[in-house]
Amino acid sequence: MSSEEMSGRSATTAAQVRKDLSLFGSFGKRGLGYDVADLSERLKKILGLDRRWRVALVGAGRIGSALVEYGGFAERSYDVVAIFDSDPSKVGERWGGLRVRDISQFVSVAKDQGVEIVILAIPVEAVPSVMEYVEEAGVRGILNFAPTKLKVPERVAVKDVNMVMELEALSFALSQEDEEA
Amino acid sequence: MSSEEMSGRSATTAAQVRKDLSLFGSFGKRGLGYDVADLSERLKKILGLDRRWRVALVGAGRIGSALVEYGGFAERSYDVVAIFDSDPSKVGERWGGLRVRDISQFVSVAKDQGVEIVILAIPVEAVPSVMEYVEEAGVRGILNFAPTKLKVPERVAVKDVNMVMELEALSFALSQEDEEA
Repeated sequence: MSSEEMSGRSATTAAQVRKDLSLFGSFGKRGLGYDVADLSERLKKILGLDRRWRVALVGAGRIGSALVEYGGFAERSYDVVAIFDSDPSKVGERWGGLRVRDISQFVSVAKDQGVEIVILAIPVEAVPSVMEYVEEAGVRGILNFAPTKLKVPERVAVKDVNMVMELEALSFALSQEDEEA
Repeated sequence: MSSEEMSGRSATTAAQVRKDLSLFGSFGKRGLGYDVADLSERLKKILGLDRRWRVALVGAGRIGSALVEYGGFAERSYDVVAIFDSDPSKVGERWGGLRVRDISQFVSVAKDQGVEIVILAIPVEAVPSVMEYVEEAGVRGILNFAPTKLKVPERVAVKDVNMVMELEALSFALSQEDEEA
């Protein structure tokens, strides 16, 4: 498949496809395009999708449930193996095949289950106490939905999903347009 | 307040605070620091937070409800003024002070209500038909939760919130660490 064809399937250009891919290695052949199966396999390996990742969800609220019930995670390489909350009315609930556990069990369960990534879907005020558990358990990656900047050891990777910040980026963009107009 | 004090309240450095702020203008005084009230007001204006923004939610599912019930939007400058879905079992439901409307009413309601920003919390397969309405209504900004790249006219600003992509960025980072180790 050519970069032209690839760009046609997304909202980008052929040049951008070639540039983006070149950042990760030498894949295609000039004039011949890319071998799709080979490219897919090599990109999966680079993205860490050639193996399964064991994920714990902390926070059994609405965002958490949207995430867990969304099929896209398992389809890729992410298995949610444990769910935690601190609310006694939620602890014990069944979510799919999992039972919501009390957050106080986090360290032992996470070690036991080999949890590497945590999805943090909790209020800001719960962050400090939960982060103590997360650090103690040796978790390596955090997908953070709490609207606060986490302080973590250097070895821990964090990705923030901050919806208010994205909205602010939008209104910033629109305000700039207004000024230029 | 000094950049040193500001950086202490977040996970960054004083130099980064100064650098980031300098991108938007000349705020502080060397040796004296920043006038917090003045800085806050000027940043609000730059971010478009010195006015209210009228927002419509499309997709009355779990992510949508997490967003609407999250107090943080109204606290800032975003008023959700309309909610839409295509599912007859959801249309007519009351969400806070709003009634979920049928998506077919989008254009007339959005124009009537002066909707400027749309939060798109719908499945990928619903995107093309909804985007026709969104374009026709002249919406200027989209916060997109659908895991697909939107094709929009140049005048429309888009911010994507893609949780799978963030997870992939995490596992990519962790895989790189493994290779270096």
